[in-house]
This record gives sequence, structure tokens and C-alpha cells, in this order.
Amino acid sequence: MAYGLLKGKRGIISGALDEKSIAWKVALKAKEEGATFTLTNAPVAMRMGAIKELAQHCNAEIIPADATSVDDLTNLFTQSTEILGGKADFVLHSIGMSPNIRKGKAYTDLNYEWFKQSVDISALSFHKMMQTAYKLDAVSEGGSIVALTYMAAQRTFPFYTDMADAKALLESIARSFGYHYGKYRQVRVNTVSQSPTPTTAGGGIGGFDKFYDFANKTAPLGNATADQCADYCITLFSDLTRMVTMQNLFHDGGFSMTGISEEIMALVNKE
Amino acid sequence: MAYGLLKGKRGIISGALDEKSIAWKVALKAKEEGATFTLTNAPVAMRMGAIKELAQHCNAEIIPADATSVDDLTNLFTQSTEILGGKADFVLHSIGMSPNIRKGKAYTDLNYEWFKQSVDISALSFHKMMQTAYKLDAVSEGGSIVALTYMAAQRTFPFYTDMADAKALLESIARSFGYHYGKYRQVRVNTVSQSPTPTTAGGGIGGFDKFYDFANKTAPLGNATADQCADYCITLFSDLTRMVTMQNLFHDGGFSMTGISEEIMALVNKE
Amino acid sequence: MAYGLLKGKRGIISGALDEKSIAWKVALKAKEEGATFTLTNAPVAMRMGAIKELAQHCNAEIIPADATSVDDLTNLFTQSTEILGGKADFVLHSIGMSPNIRKGKAYTDLNYEWFKQSVDISALSFHKMMQTAYKLDAVSEGGSIVALTYMAAQRTFPFYTDMADAKALLESIARSFGYHYGKYRQVRVNTVSQSPTPTTAGGGIGGFDKFYDFANKTAPLGNATADQCADYCITLFSDLTRMVTMQNLFHDGGFSMTGISEEIMALVNKE
Amino acid sequence: MAYGLLKGKRGIISGALDEKSIAWKVALKAKEEGATFTLTNAPVAMRMGAIKELAQHCNAEIIPADATSVDDLTNLFTQSTEILGGKADFVLHSIGMSPNIRKGKAYTDLNYEWFKQSVDISALSFHKMMQTAYKLDAVSEGGSIVALTYMAAQRTFPFYTDMADAKALLESIARSFGYHYGKYRQVRVNTVSQSPTPTTAGGGIGGFDKFYDFANKTAPLGNATADQCADYCITLFSDLTRMVTMQNLFHDGGFSMTGISEEIMALVNKE
Repeated sequence: MAYGLLKGKRGIISGALDEKSIAWKVALKAKEEGATFTLTNAPVAMRMGAIKELAQHCNAEIIPADATSVDDLTNLFTQSTEILGGKADFVLHSIGMSPNIRKGKAYTDLNYEWFKQSVDISALSFHKMMQTAYKLDAVSEGGSIVALTYMAAQRTFPFYTDMADAKALLESIARSFGYHYGKYRQVRVNTVSQSPTPTTAGGGIGGFDKFYDFANKTAPLGNATADQCADYCITLFSDLTRMVTMQNLFHDGGFSMTGISEEIMALVNKE
Repeated sequence: MAYGLLKGKRGIISGALDEKSIAWKVALKAKEEGATFTLTNAPVAMRMGAIKELAQHCNAEIIPADATSVDDLTNLFTQSTEILGGKADFVLHSIGMSPNIRKGKAYTDLNYEWFKQSVDISALSFHKMMQTAYKLDAVSEGGSIVALTYMAAQRTFPFYTDMADAKALLESIARSFGYHYGKYRQVRVNTVSQSPTPTTAGGGIGGFDKFYDFANKTAPLGNATADQCADYCITLFSDLTRMVTMQNLFHDGGFSMTGISEEIMALVNKE
Repeated sequence: MAYGLLKGKRGIISGALDEKSIAWKVALKAKEEGATFTLTNAPVAMRMGAIKELAQHCNAEIIPADATSVDDLTNLFTQSTEILGGKADFVLHSIGMSPNIRKGKAYTDLNYEWFKQSVDISALSFHKMMQTAYKLDAVSEGGSIVALTYMAAQRTFPFYTDMADAKALLESIARSFGYHYGKYRQVRVNTVSQSPTPTTAGGGIGGFDKFYDFANKTAPLGNATADQCADYCITLFSDLTRMVTMQNLFHDGGFSMTGISEEIMALVNKE
Repeated sequence: MAYGLLKGKRGIISGALDEKSIAWKVALKAKEEGATFTLTNAPVAMRMGAIKELAQHCNAEIIPADATSVDDLTNLFTQSTEILGGKADFVLHSIGMSPNIRKGKAYTDLNYEWFKQSVDISALSFHKMMQTAYKLDAVSEGGSIVALTYMAAQRTFPFYTDMADAKALLESIARSFGYHYGKYRQVRVNTVSQSPTPTTAGGGIGGFDKFYDFANKTAPLGNATADQCADYCITLFSDLTRMVTMQNLFHDGGFSMTGISEEIMALVNKE
């Protein structure tokens, strides 16, 4: 069901790789809710992705951008403003990658060049995106910026290795920049801490399936889906949440606040 | 602007005393968004309040209930189900009172009978409300329960005395019951931690005005209003947030995540 | 090994029931570290307990006190000051009891009279203890007050039912009173959030053994023992921690910060 | 007063620049408490610092090391083990620097090369230190690793700019590595979040004095000094805290848990 929550709003959505991506779902919902937007992704991700199909479906233009490049981001905001005919009312950051995870390096044996890449791609990119927008004054008064994150920023999930640290940095950047963007243009900045989600990126993490199951058995509502996450992002882009800022918001069926569930107790008991 | 977010939904709204009340604003917005609901308040509060005017405006019936009485709450849910023609899809708990604050008792000189009343009225009432609903199966599958709270549950604001403790208890009850209601009927339970709000109740707290000003100068977006809080509650009652549960959600313009603002720095500097 | 950390210090230790009690261990360590102290417990608990044996061993006097009675607490602090020849430098609150847990009531079917007893015994008693001490000026400048708590105050552990809420209230009282006692006499107030511990009280909770095992498999250092908890309390009573106040301190082998351990992953995997 | 808490223990202390440094105070206390240790600092910092004087006083050798260089850190742990005749029982990380702060760049106008340096020096260095020690098995069973941090990792203090983000990353690394080091050698890893402290490094931050005053007026016990921080670190290095790990421990006179103090209320009121 659509409500017109984003009617007349303009946006920029990053990170839609394929139809499993949360960003993909956000794009579909944003369209349904009346928004117009541009899509962006790294040139390399775009070759693998089906983003053109999404763009067509949403009547959206694609602006390739390496989120670690301030030049690319400058181009992104400049072009997007032009294409959409105005500043962005909402921005989604859904960008993350750890070479250490991809290549199976243990957390106690990290490659530091790769660590820096994890940090640069997954966290600094968010600062760059906001600083670029801030300097160009490319987000409209009362706009909303959301980045996707994961609870490993608060507690250790060993398989998540250096992405945990990158996400902690990302969430800190959200708070820090949220202060300044709030003062400047009443723009709010939040992170959504989503349940483990079987996206193409998420699936790449070793042990994902087992952990997905554990989380699903722990959360009283079960794991939140990518579709549901998109719904939640829409509320954060809407005018109904204009005073929510600098928050890390768990969208996880209650996982974060559950110490142990009866299902897991039963499982331990069988042992 | 209205979106039809609560079209076809039924609800119960407690705590609307007068047009400054957050609950009053929630009722108005819920009406606009398409909901039908019943209103409730303590018999004593109703005598002082203008709730009948609200009821008329919203085409809602009033069911008086002392929220510390399980009998009254049983009657509330039973009657409400009957009047609305079905279970509640959303419930708002906006109930709190501290005799110690009213009578100016310092936190180091509390009257314990009054402390127990603070706890009973402001926190246990929430458990009673949910346990009653749970036993009657009076909240529909996937429903949403929200209670209003304040950040004194996390950090000390001396003037808030025993209400701080009552709110900490309230938030714990939200988490604890949220687990069970989630398992049982996919019902989510959350608390909204609102900026200081110049309601009739809030204004009764000594030093409120000064503190309101401090909070307003600290939060990058300024203090959130009662109207904005109502908007936020609507998103939490809607189907777009079905996987958010057991959370304490700050709706405070960023106050909770700001250590100090430049305005307060300037003020300290003038000293 | 003893260090003389509490040499010359006076204290009051509540809650030593038998040799499994954390309070019992704290008494032994405090003695070793050079403190003199009085012991207290509820008259009813004392009948069951072996506290006299402990008292003899520690050369300590026992002052029975119902911690819900301000009169008893007044007597406790007055007598203790007299016996010890001075104000208390440290106080341990280790008091908690839930009739709902004892009698197997589910969290969704709580008896509210019992809930109030849980709250009164397990949380309000801490306020009463501090308010009584404050009024009598019975804790010395720079003194240290510690209460034992459990992480169910932050996240839901279903078997812990209403004790979770009581502990959340206890922790809030520690913060709130810590502010005032800090201003008044530089007294610090903290809570120690201990691993599940196989005490006589803890063992009474249904499912304790299973959960103990889960926690032990989750925490990278395993569960902390009662002895280790006593060691930690000693550091908090010592002069080396004089600026730590209003904190909830996890003493749990890392459980609180571990989302999932490899052991639990393996267990889920076997499923 | 000394207790012999670190009698027989070996350690490595980084970051002692001059007698105002927290690390300097930790060295003095560690010596008093019976430890032997090596000192380390960056070659460039050593030229400015009076570390030789400290070394002489403590009968400690200095091993220069750039904490961003794995080679230097390898040399540090190897040499230290040799000099001290055994593995380290404790390690202090007290390293941080932000070129953006030094050069007065606003948070909305960060130089990204400098941001990366802030992150590399202030946060990644901690991972490198631990990974190096882990691979060399250079910390003894049950050892203790502590890093100093600041509360800007949780809430925004605008003048702290990118150090806030670096500290958030540092604290995440403490949690993440704490898990692994706990499993491997029962080594605990914690961060101490200290009050603003008038060190040579801290004083370099614009607005420090004003903020120091604000914090001092907010914390019920006032700001914690460098000496008191050293005392606290000693307890964390001792055997009395062997089950505390993966925690961020506030050592701040209660600042972190105080929403507003009466002093600040009075100040706002005068306005």
C-alpha cells in the first residue's frame, strides 16, 4: 500500500546492486511513495549489478560515483540537483565492503591496507558524501540522510571482523555530522541498524547462514526483511520524523534488546 | 498533510488532558490519518481536562479508567473492542505523575508512599495495561504499543527526582513485555523519549522553563514539539515500522547525542 | 594475596546468606584487605543463613535490618557508626527477591502485590539505605556505595521476569542518588552487573543452569565467579576509584559486549 | 599510598610526553605499585618530551616506536620482553593526534588525508599494537590492555571534530580485539573514558578551557585528574579486575550520567 509519504520529494539512493539489496527495495518504495530520485553506485558495482533495470523501472537516472572520491561525489550532487530540478530531500548511504572479509583474513591477522580500504569505503565515504553535500548546499532544509549499519558496532560478532569497526566509525560520523547539518539546514542524520539480511553482499560473510538463523530465533519478531527495512527508511525520509537525528535506530525485530530467547534456551538445553 | 497511514486502524489513546497534551495531539493526528479510537483518562484527570471536546472533535468515545486498576483496564479493553468493532491496532500510554514532584520533595528526602505512587501510576500502569490486553487478546496481530518517556531514565536531571526512576522502570517494562507480546502476536512495544514539552503536566516541574531553554540550546534541531511527537507516534503505529520493537526512541532534535553545543559553550564562556 | 587496600576503612555489608553469596565473599576479601565492618541481613534471611559463622570469622557484628524499613535502616547506620567508631567508608547493597519468580508466575501473568514487593525489596531498599545514610550523614567523605545488579536491566532474559524491571529501577536509583551524594560528600554510587552466579538465590531461578552455560560459552573469559566479583568490589571501595560514579559496571567476562561467540555459532550449526 | 598491586608485574606504557601526561602518571604509579616496565613513544614526540627524565626516575628503558608501524611495534614487544625478562602483564595505549584539530579545520571541512592520519595514529595503532602482541604471544595469560579514550565517542562535542570518530573506532577495536584476546590468553581489553584533562595534548584543542569548566560544573565529583586516572588504570592492571573486559569505563566524576547539574541550571538561569 502506498501513502504518498514522499510526494514531491527528491532523493539520492546509493548502493542498489541487485533486487536483494536493501537500497533496491528503498528505491522501489520511494517511487511508490511519490519520490523522484537518482541512483548511484560505484562503477565496478554497476557492471555486476542490475541497476539499469531498476533505473528504468523507477524512471531514475544513474550517476556513477566512487564514494571514496570527493570529485565523484561533487559530480553526483551537482548532476543530481540538475536532473531532479532541486536539492535532495533525502539521501541513502548503503555502501560497505571489507577486503579482509572477502579474502577471509581473521581479525587477529588483518591486512592493514585492506583495513584502511574497509574504513574508507564503508565509513569515510559517508563523511565525504555529507561534507560534499554541505559545501554545495545540496540537501534541502529539513532533509533526511540515512546510512545502513549493523549491530556489530556495539557488540562483537566475530565473523564480522573489521566491518564492525568500520560500522562503529560510520555511526560516529552520523552523530558528529548530524550535529553540524542540524544547525546548518535542520537536516537530520541517522543510521538504521538492520537485522542480518540475505543480500548479495551480506551472503558473502562466512557463517552468515548460521548467524541469520540464530538472530531469527533470538528476535521475538524474527529478522526484519529488506522490504521492511525499506518501509522504515521511508518513514525516516518523510516529514513525520523531522526531529529524529543523530540516532542509531535498531530495525531488527527486537534482537538488540533480547539477551536470550526461549528458543535459544531450548537449543542450549538439548546440548 | 494527511496520508491515510492509519486508515482502517483502531486504537486506544490515554492521557489527553488538554490541548497541550501530547496525547491530545496524537488523537488529532490519528484521526486525520484515518484511525478510529477510544480515549481514556483517570476519572480525576477528566474532571480537570477538556477531553470531551477532543472526543467530540474526533468522534471518539471516552472510557474512564484508573490505569492502576486492573478492573478498570479490563473494562477499558473490553468496551473499546466492542465500541470499535475489533481489537486495538495501536495503544498509547501517556500516563505519569509524581506526588513527590508535585509537593516539592527533594530526591534525598522522598516520601516513600509517594514514591510507590509514582511507580504505580507512571510505570506499573504500563505493565497492567499490557498484561490486561494480553490476557484478553485485545491487541491485534502486528499491533503497536507506545509509551512516552523522558531521558532522565538514562542520565540525571536533578529536578526530575523520582520520575527519572519511574521512567527507567517504564522503559524496562517496555523491553520485557515487548519480548512476550512479540512472540505472542507480533505486537511491538516501544517508548518514545521526547524533548521537554511545555504541557500542563510538564510545566508543573520546578525549573522546567530554564531546562527547556537549555535543551533547546543544546539540541541541534531545537526541542521537538508535541505536534512533532504526535507525527512520530503515527509512524510507529503505522505498518511501516512493524519490525521496530523493545526500543527506546529519542525524539529530541538530537539532544541525547549532543555533549555540548556551541550555544552552551558561548554561554559558559560569558561567565 | 592481600594488599591492604581497605586498611583503616569501615563498612557495612548486606546480603551475606551463606558461603555462596557474593556478599559473603566481599566480607572475606574486605577483611583480608584490612577493613572493619558490620554485617546486615533481613531477620528472615538470617534464620536460614550461616551469617553468624561469617561474623565470627570476620570479627564483625551483625545488625539485623529489614531493608524495606526506614526505621531498621536508621538503626543499622546508627549502630554501625557506634560499633565501628566512625562513619562508613563503604556500603554493599546485595539485596533482591521476587515473589513472582519464587512462585513461578510468568511475566505476562504477574501478581501485582508481588511485583510491588520485588520493587520494594530489590530496588527501593537501595534508595532507603542511601537516604537514611544521607540524612544521618553516616557515610564518610569520598565513601563508596555499590549495589549488585544484573544485565537483564538492559536486555530481556525471559526467565528473569520482574527482577529485570526491579534491577533497571535499582540502576536508575544509583545514578539519581549518585548525583546528590556526590555533591554532598563526594560519595560515589555504582552498580556492578555480575555474570550469572550460582548462589543460593540465583539458583532459585528456573532455567538458571542452562543459562549459566550459555553465558559461559558466550563470554570470552567465561562467567565471573563470586570471588572475582568480590575482588572487583574491593577496587571500587578503595581510594583508587574515587572518581568513578553513577556507573553500571559489567563484571561478566565480556558477555555484555559479545553478540555471539564461536561456541554458540557451533552449537547453532549442529542444529 | 602504595599497595603492591603490581608487584612482580611487567608492562609497556606508551604516550608519556611530559609530567602532565596521563601516561606519565600511570608510569609513576605503576612504579610505586611494584611494576617494572618499558616506556615507548613516537620518535618525534620524544624529542619534545621529557620522557628520559621519567625513564630515569622509574628505572625504565625507552623503546622508541611509531605506533602506526608494525615493524616498530614488533621491535617494541620483542625488545620489551627481553629487557623485562618476560611477557607484558599490562599495556597502556595513550596515543592520539588529529592534524585536523591541530590545524583548525572544521568538521564540515575536513582534510581527508589528515582524517586518515587521525584514524591511523589514534585508533588503528591500537589494533596494530594488539595484533603484533598477539602474533608474538607477547602478553601474558590474564594480562590487561587499556587504552585511553574520550566520551566524544558517544556524544558530539563539536570542538573535538574527527577525534570523536577516531575514539569511536578505538573503542570498537577494544571490543573486537578483546573478544579474541580473551579467548586466546584470557587477556582483557578495556578503554578508560577520562574527564577532559589539561594535558599538553588536550590543551591544544580549541575551547578546551571553557569546556573543562563546563564538565567540572556538570560532574557531581568534578573532573577527574590525571593522577586519579592513573590510580584507576592501576586497578585495571591488577589481578582484582580479571573478569572486566571489552568495556568502556567512564572515569569522569559522573559527567557521563549527568544530564544537567544545578550549577549549569543556575548559569542558564542568569542568562
